[in-house]
Amino acid sequence: MDITLDTPPALLADRFKTLRYDETERAVIVLNRRKYPFTTEYVTLRTVEEVATAIEDMTVQGGPPLAYVAGLGLAMAARDLEASAARQGVYLEQVAKRLLATRPTADDLHAIIPATLNVALEALRESRDPFRAALDYVNSEIQRGNEVSQKCGQYAARLINNGDQILTHCIAGAALCWMLWTAKQSGKNITLVGCETRPYFQGARLTAASAQEMDIPFKLITDGMSAHLMSVGKLDKFICAADRITLDGHITNKIGTLQHAIAAHHFGKPFYVLGYDGPDPKTETGADIPIEERNPDEIFYARGEAGTVRTAIHGIGGYYPAFDITPPHLISAICTDRGIFAPHAVRDYFEA
Amino acid sequence: MDITLDTPPALLADRFKTLRYDETERAVIVLNRRKYPFTTEYVTLRTVEEVATAIEDMTVQGGPPLAYVAGLGLAMAARDLEASAARQGVYLEQVAKRLLATRPTADDLHAIIPATLNVALEALRESRDPFRAALDYVNSEIQRGNEVSQKCGQYAARLINNGDQILTHCIAGAALCWMLWTAKQSGKNITLVGCETRPYFQGARLTAASAQEMDIPFKLITDGMSAHLMSVGKLDKFICAADRITLDGHITNKIGTLQHAIAAHHFGKPFYVLGYDGPDPKTETGADIPIEERNPDEIFYARGEAGTVRTAIHGIGGYYPAFDITPPHLISAICTDRGIFAPHAVRDYFEA
Repeated sequence: MDITLDTPPALLADRFKTLRYDETERAVIVLNRRKYPFTTEYVTLRTVEEVATAIEDMTVQGGPPLAYVAGLGLAMAARDLEASAARQGVYLEQVAKRLLATRPTADDLHAIIPATLNVALEALRESRDPFRAALDYVNSEIQRGNEVSQKCGQYAARLINNGDQILTHCIAGAALCWMLWTAKQSGKNITLVGCETRPYFQGARLTAASAQEMDIPFKLITDGMSAHLMSVGKLDKFICAADRITLDGHITNKIGTLQHAIAAHHFGKPFYVLGYDGPDPKTETGADIPIEERNPDEIFYARGEAGTVRTAIHGIGGYYPAFDITPPHLISAICTDRGIFAPHAVRDYFEA
Repeated sequence: MDITLDTPPALLADRFKTLRYDETERAVIVLNRRKYPFTTEYVTLRTVEEVATAIEDMTVQGGPPLAYVAGLGLAMAARDLEASAARQGVYLEQVAKRLLATRPTADDLHAIIPATLNVALEALRESRDPFRAALDYVNSEIQRGNEVSQKCGQYAARLINNGDQILTHCIAGAALCWMLWTAKQSGKNITLVGCETRPYFQGARLTAASAQEMDIPFKLITDGMSAHLMSVGKLDKFICAADRITLDGHITNKIGTLQHAIAAHHFGKPFYVLGYDGPDPKTETGADIPIEERNPDEIFYARGEAGTVRTAIHGIGGYYPAFDITPPHLISAICTDRGIFAPHAVRDYFEA
């Protein structure tokens, strides 16, 4: 992938740099987001089951990236079909079902897998190579996603003022990089204040690394500090991504987002959502979003990995809802690749 | 210390079990709260400087416990006075100043040190043993503190309903133990939901251990989950302690408290404060509370200790305000040893 001079110098800004199908290896190669940037390690996924597990254990995470990796996994399945035409479709449908079951909340996965399946099945019907058709489709989606990220980030940059101290939560990904980079290049001095985001510390690792790679000042806080910093004037706005946006303007994002949104509302600070390619046309309202409940064991460790430091005592229970839902009245604006929308009117995205 | 049958079977419920002056060792012996319950380790503090450092590095923490340890440190200084009467008072005043400088936010330290100093100086003037006078005074304060905790917890238990799922933050100490134990003994089934409390994980360690020692179900959450759990009906009320209460009903407590209080207010859930022995008569309002800013390096590690797992990348900044301030309109009631007060009327404590 060639990079234009304007591309933000952050690894996460270009999806092709962190995930791709490798023709020589005949495998999906992905950045291990559980370890970056402590280790820049790429994992080679050779089977559908390896792809599914990498999504489930958060080796790859973030709504669009994990959807692309799943799509590439489905393409691999289309590469390795049996000779019997009758069983090819059934097999691809089974693989699609397995990949869809990995994570329920973000909408990208649940859009790209059915679409890739259709592309592969259509190729089979028309006696074209289903692997090549599926791979081309997913790659075009990754390319489209990169362009969406750029446009979304550039729209969002309009909402940034010189001197802003911007709170973010978890990883807002490529659009956040584009927003920060565009603001910086237009001469705005900004500070990014990132929540560490327990239990996997995405903020302390991935978001901090993106800021550092773009030479943007970064201040780390724990997940409980945002309200206090708003109360003392050390935060001007809250900006994060969304794993799914509903037609009536609810968003779901990494657990903790709702708490910051309520605090921002309480203190009169704007909350902007990086909404990438807009609402999910199939999800009407917040109650329709399935919230993934992960194994509470994951919150008993630092960096969530057994074998690292145990931070909780044994013999207790826990909750680990991976996402929460923020209603539209707590959101100031949703930025997309087609412009900036009032949350209650985000359905207009489809007419824009 | 004898224990009556009613004392909660939690180590933190009785202050004499975690801190005391030892006559044989001629030292202050304190539970290491940075390590408990992973290790039950008692630290022997033989000098004023060792006492001050143990408070600064949070080996001993919690408003009253650290105040008692400081008081015992001042008593030790009164034990080791020079012969010159003229310099004894000056020395004790210097020691008091050193101990007061350890932590600015909680009021207990700033009440007990001047009082212990007065007791020692009066003994000197009256040719009594200043060490024995100071030690007796601090021990009587610890005893009084135990009784305050019991009464405060028993009042608070009136606000607990059968089936309650109670959110708490950090360690609410002896009064929380008394509240939970009293509720449990009166037949109420309760679940304690504790925030892990980054960066030192007091909730995942100390509060979880207290619940476990009393056989009360405990669910751990990360610091960003409370609003979500309130939104889905998994939390009924929020109850924590306060490091200082002002005459007009503001409270300060471990960073993160304000965020939970705002969320509780948003979702219409009550927020009760375990107020022990009431407001600080010297602090009028929230703006008069000094908020301790700790070294942000402490939030870059799991369990806050260099040498354990680094959780943040290098080369970034951070904020670590150790406390935040919650205004009275977000608080439902303040429980004390003299009864339950409406926050705006907490000044009435002194007439109760």
